[in-house]
Amino acid sequence: MTAREAYDALLAHSRASADIIAALSLLGWDQQVMLPAQAHAGRANQIGALTAILHRRACDPAMGQWLAACEGSELTAAPATPEAANIRELRRDYDQAVKIPEALAVALAQAASTGQRAWELARKDNDFQAFAPHLQTLLDLSREKAQALGYQTEAYDALLDLYEPGEKAAAIAPVLAELRDAAVDILGRIKDAPAPADLPDGPYDIAAQEKLLRQVTALIGLSPTASRLDVSAHPFSTLIGPGDARITTRFDPADFTKAFFGAVHETGHALYSLGHVGNGHYGTPMGEPASFAVHESQSRLWENQVARSLPFWQHVTPLAAACFPQLADTSPEAMVKAVGAVRPGLIRVDADETTYNLHIILRFELELALIRSDLAVADLPGAWNEKSQAILGLTPPTDALGCLQDVHWSTGAFGYFPTYSLGNIYAACLFEAAGRAIPDLPERMAAGDFAPLRQWLDVNIHAKGRQLPPRTLIAAATGQDPTAAPLVRHLRAKAAAIYGV
Amino acid sequence: MTAREAYDALLAHSRASADIIAALSLLGWDQQVMLPAQAHAGRANQIGALTAILHRRACDPAMGQWLAACEGSELTAAPATPEAANIRELRRDYDQAVKIPEALAVALAQAASTGQRAWELARKDNDFQAFAPHLQTLLDLSREKAQALGYQTEAYDALLDLYEPGEKAAAIAPVLAELRDAAVDILGRIKDAPAPADLPDGPYDIAAQEKLLRQVTALIGLSPTASRLDVSAHPFSTLIGPGDARITTRFDPADFTKAFFGAVHETGHALYSLGHVGNGHYGTPMGEPASFAVHESQSRLWENQVARSLPFWQHVTPLAAACFPQLADTSPEAMVKAVGAVRPGLIRVDADETTYNLHIILRFELELALIRSDLAVADLPGAWNEKSQAILGLTPPTDALGCLQDVHWSTGAFGYFPTYSLGNIYAACLFEAAGRAIPDLPERMAAGDFAPLRQWLDVNIHAKGRQLPPRTLIAAATGQDPTAAPLVRHLRAKAAAIYGV
Repeated sequence: MTAREAYDALLAHSRASADIIAALSLLGWDQQVMLPAQAHAGRANQIGALTAILHRRACDPAMGQWLAACEGSELTAAPATPEAANIRELRRDYDQAVKIPEALAVALAQAASTGQRAWELARKDNDFQAFAPHLQTLLDLSREKAQALGYQTEAYDALLDLYEPGEKAAAIAPVLAELRDAAVDILGRIKDAPAPADLPDGPYDIAAQEKLLRQVTALIGLSPTASRLDVSAHPFSTLIGPGDARITTRFDPADFTKAFFGAVHETGHALYSLGHVGNGHYGTPMGEPASFAVHESQSRLWENQVARSLPFWQHVTPLAAACFPQLADTSPEAMVKAVGAVRPGLIRVDADETTYNLHIILRFELELALIRSDLAVADLPGAWNEKSQAILGLTPPTDALGCLQDVHWSTGAFGYFPTYSLGNIYAACLFEAAGRAIPDLPERMAAGDFAPLRQWLDVNIHAKGRQLPPRTLIAAATGQDPTAAPLVRHLRAKAAAIYGV
Repeated sequence: MTAREAYDALLAHSRASADIIAALSLLGWDQQVMLPAQAHAGRANQIGALTAILHRRACDPAMGQWLAACEGSELTAAPATPEAANIRELRRDYDQAVKIPEALAVALAQAASTGQRAWELARKDNDFQAFAPHLQTLLDLSREKAQALGYQTEAYDALLDLYEPGEKAAAIAPVLAELRDAAVDILGRIKDAPAPADLPDGPYDIAAQEKLLRQVTALIGLSPTASRLDVSAHPFSTLIGPGDARITTRFDPADFTKAFFGAVHETGHALYSLGHVGNGHYGTPMGEPASFAVHESQSRLWENQVARSLPFWQHVTPLAAACFPQLADTSPEAMVKAVGAVRPGLIRVDADETTYNLHIILRFELELALIRSDLAVADLPGAWNEKSQAILGLTPPTDALGCLQDVHWSTGAFGYFPTYSLGNIYAACLFEAAGRAIPDLPERMAAGDFAPLRQWLDVNIHAKGRQLPPRTLIAAATGQDPTAAPLVRHLRAKAAAIYGV
């Protein structure tokens, strides 16, 4: 078998697996958006069955033989070619897969499915005890997974690496500290400044909210014929397959900005998804996202860098006023100030840009302690509340508003949270670079023309797939190694514009 | 390996396959109800990938070994035990599966997925030419399938047998002729009788239609926590998995009865589905439907025997009047007459009970000719129109109202249509038997109590799964071999009540 033949076999195998992943993605989307209440146990079995098939495919010894035939051949001579990138990334995936026993992979998938359902009910009933055994199972299985994957100094790193290749807890901690220092500094400066005026009171008609969302997501560039917008308890974005990116939101009649920024955020994810599966490499690593932080950079860029900016609201304020009569007298400037207010709160997904990263620090420290067994599941609510007071200055009155607020741990996604802050950092790096590349970007945005920005992102990030490791990808797109500096600059500039400090 | 061990292995294999079938069912449901327009090609690939996996599992040589170890053992000593029935039916499935090459199974699944999409567009555009190549492909693949399966005298029988075990075209034809004679006779008798008054004009508010549907389907016994009701171009019912039966409808503001009877029909299917998967044998033949005609008997029983009866409307007319103000003065008797009118029309799914079977005769004769190669695809529209004139006395003005009206052939479902008329026949047999078993059934129905009927069906049909072959199942439930006589009696009694003939 020649290296080329082995490579073709590798890719055919990868493409067929992608079709099974698509079915799994649909089972997951449907569980959150459509599934009848009595069907959750059955759904966990279905997810388990496909996960087992997928896992067996991922560990197929033939993969190892094909990879060995490719590695060191002319296909890997130039490291940035699609062939070399696909071989490198399929090797990474294969080496990870063979380390995880099938029984563990299936147990994790089933525990995630039942855990998510238990979390939904527990959050609704504010009943941490009902969720605790599920969390314990997920934690035990995740520790087992970390052991199976292996690590140098920290079990947590094995899990983090699944979301963010190459990152380690020891490298994340100082970056988060930098963001915490910046947040503390900004909060201190604005303490005595007058807060910006709130937006007019609701109710904001739900049908009008949906209309505005569909208008704005299409304006940004999400094609209605390649996407869906639905309602779910926890907003999310998922790619099912080519031409099929789905986002969800939840509507609050008192405050249209929750669904609005949530949907713009998920639209950023969806644009990335459609971009990397639309580059001609679908079903292979070259057609896959680079990492979770890179994914988050795309959602954050549209949500924060774009949709909280003055140029954006110069175009969108009239559209919003056409949907909501109470906004008739609200200027774009007032809108930007209202949606840019810095105000520590209990809920991560409602947090402003500055205090958002404090929520990540809270979770990162707690999940690190859980994985290290320094914190018991039973003690999580107390530890959460203490840390929340210390970091945010607020103690949640209920677990539903505290340690039960996020879906992640209910699916076993330990090591995921830091990618949010990394994503914020990458978003700021990319938006600064896009601004250099597109000198009239503010004017274009004010005219409702988001195509230049979208195209810049598509060429420099979306279409690249997993061609480069995450940090290298951002460095290649921006011309410099990513740091927290652009994000800190952005947050300080915002505070200056809104609070005059 | 003991027979019991082999049996346990068989069942574990069957249950895991059921979870993959569930994922396939979801991919299919989603395609018709949710899928973004750009995602259809990808969806066909996903369906193809899972079909290939499923087909490989169905032909797994281990199945043959396990079956051989079971057959002739103590497990098959008494033919009606769950063990004996599961072994008999898994043998049937295995023997069928090994005859069909994987490439053909995948090609059929993909052609069905793309064919259905092409049909949707062709019907919308009234463009048979656009659909013709898809139909040709599906026909060629279906003939190939019939050859692979084998048959005695008629290729069509190999396909029919997939839907209705043991049935043959030669046995179906005289039964259909009996129904045709009855319809011709009834049409002749009522020709000069005054037609019943139509229901009041629309519009019938769509939201009110949906409200009534949800009320009535729940009243009949479809649990909202184990089902969904959605909108699709072609109404259908599908079981995804345990506790997850999904039905669809389409609303016509001019006529609420279309969605109403459609949804009651699909509810009958859904009740059967939830009944056979809820009998403790999910994932094995004992937890599967007996046949397509038995399935249809459940939908027809609720749609026609129940929901077009006077007792039903004695309870439901006030509910309908609460939804639609224009029904305030309509009596239950007037309702029954209006929804029981006999009037040949072009559209099968809108047909009355008497002329419905004429639509089946039309399709049965045409698909038999297509499979026999007595009719070319290009000549189908002309042949349809000629036969429609001869059988129904009507020529469709467009193909959209003629040979493009049904989804079935677009998914390669040749041999399916006769099961509709068999289902009508079985429904009448069962409703007569239920009436004997539940002497106060009319009074119960008039009081809105459908539980006795539902329970009788659940015990005698739903919970039986594939324990007995279809005709034997009906005979066991009713105490006599099924014939067309109860249906003909029912149709004549209806004509007498409505037209006084």
